[in-house]
Amino acid sequence: MTDPNRQQIADAFRTIQADICQNLEQLDGKEKFSNDTWKHQEGGGGHSRVIQHGNMIEKGGVNFSEVWGTLPEPLKKEFGDSVKEFFATGVSIVLHPYSPHVPIIHMNIRYFETDSGRKWFGGGIDLTPHYIDAGLAKKFHTQLKNVCDKHSPEYYNKFKTWADDYFFIPHRNETRGIGGIFFDHLTPAEGQNWQQLFDFVCAVGRTFYPAYEEQVLATREKPAGEAQKKWQQLRRGRYVEFNLVYDRGTKFGLQTNGRIESILMSLPETAGWLYNYQPAEGSPEQMTLQHLKKGVDWLK
Amino acid sequence: MTDPNRQQIADAFRTIQADICQNLEQLDGKEKFSNDTWKHQEGGGGHSRVIQHGNMIEKGGVNFSEVWGTLPEPLKKEFGDSVKEFFATGVSIVLHPYSPHVPIIHMNIRYFETDSGRKWFGGGIDLTPHYIDAGLAKKFHTQLKNVCDKHSPEYYNKFKTWADDYFFIPHRNETRGIGGIFFDHLTPAEGQNWQQLFDFVCAVGRTFYPAYEEQVLATREKPAGEAQKKWQQLRRGRYVEFNLVYDRGTKFGLQTNGRIESILMSLPETAGWLYNYQPAEGSPEQMTLQHLKKGVDWLK
Repeated sequence: MTDPNRQQIADAFRTIQADICQNLEQLDGKEKFSNDTWKHQEGGGGHSRVIQHGNMIEKGGVNFSEVWGTLPEPLKKEFGDSVKEFFATGVSIVLHPYSPHVPIIHMNIRYFETDSGRKWFGGGIDLTPHYIDAGLAKKFHTQLKNVCDKHSPEYYNKFKTWADDYFFIPHRNETRGIGGIFFDHLTPAEGQNWQQLFDFVCAVGRTFYPAYEEQVLATREKPAGEAQKKWQQLRRGRYVEFNLVYDRGTKFGLQTNGRIESILMSLPETAGWLYNYQPAEGSPEQMTLQHLKKGVDWLK
Repeated sequence: MTDPNRQQIADAFRTIQADICQNLEQLDGKEKFSNDTWKHQEGGGGHSRVIQHGNMIEKGGVNFSEVWGTLPEPLKKEFGDSVKEFFATGVSIVLHPYSPHVPIIHMNIRYFETDSGRKWFGGGIDLTPHYIDAGLAKKFHTQLKNVCDKHSPEYYNKFKTWADDYFFIPHRNETRGIGGIFFDHLTPAEGQNWQQLFDFVCAVGRTFYPAYEEQVLATREKPAGEAQKKWQQLRRGRYVEFNLVYDRGTKFGLQTNGRIESILMSLPETAGWLYNYQPAEGSPEQMTLQHLKKGVDWLK
């Protein structure tokens, strides 16, 4: 069996993007995704699909890109001087719902190749509830564990820990949300081939929708008042902090002259900051803050 | 005449902070500044003074700090390995008004010393109108030119250009606002002494209030509708992008375990992002965007 080539990978990712958009449109029930097709200055391009002001989704994007060209300067150090050309394709999602009870979600799958013969997959899914619900957190992590376990018994623990470390805001000493899974620079393990790895990454992409649907259906009808909406603004503010200060994908995009509107589609329509805000003792907001820690076993 | 020492400089900065807070409270007419006193883990500390939900100011901070200790790791490269200890004192201001017609303003003055015998001043004032008004922009830059000209005929042009380059958002290819003045690593020029430089930096600090008062009095009564308030959210979004991605003071604070609430008091209470927003042809919003460029001569 030959390894999957870049075209097959990009095609599969494109299909995942299309399926997710179709499913999300049905789930939302009101708005459709727009589609902006753009070209990369050197080669390839992408489809940025954005939904704004739906029933359930206030602002969200499902991006596909497939670009190639000369390795940008800021990455040369990381890759070594012998690397000159790269190819990258991926799907990247962030959804910001209206309701403070519906979580923010992020998913990304990506494939990278260099002219020096290196190639790898990366990806992840993580959930950022404005209010943490232990039962729903368990359901989310169970879905991720299930998809991981089908491909390797080691994946879930390893990638769950990786997500805890990656989706972390050092200056706040808090995780972005309840984490999920994250992996990067993934190459076949002993006894594994590229096709199996590719299958895993596609399975992660296809897990996104059912995992999110479960969260949405369980939370979308819960009533929310002004206090909950204010808290949501502050949680969104932390999301902005993570994305602008730490997120590698955002940094990569900003440093390499990427399409700004596609990179920053991850930011919410509104967000807020209050000075020295402290949630009330024993409140659901305080409970949420207390659980934004690394190393929580959400499956318990 | 002996050079001003660190204690004299910190005392003068402390007085500037107190005077500005008193003046701003009168201008606002409703709220008072809170005062959080904090200690730096090694030596010194600061007074973070914040005002929220005033008549005119929605959220603003006037910080003073005076800290010393071991040079933080991320700065060792910049300063050279022989530097081990530092002393830093400064005043730092950001004000976010309620009205989209009243500009956002920022001011900072600072003094830095190392145990290797290097010392310098830095500082700046810049204005970020949500709507640019050429007449008011001219008034603002005239005040800055006046204070510069009293101390050196070269300062205004040099520091105005420096502000254009510093208060710039590369990924948007736009300036943060109409700029102002910015300077860093400033040491006495030929024929100038440290006292004269110190006098200039204090004069910049004292120019902040009258320069801002002039802007506020000319704009605070202008009526604003929903469309203007929406635009203000987007401009605040750009302010957040600048501060989290590029601002050196913020980066320094985040990398060196500074007091997060004081560092991020520069962020607005609310901000927003829309995908691919384009202002209408010929609108005041478009006019503003067209003037967010380097090299505009606001004195004309």
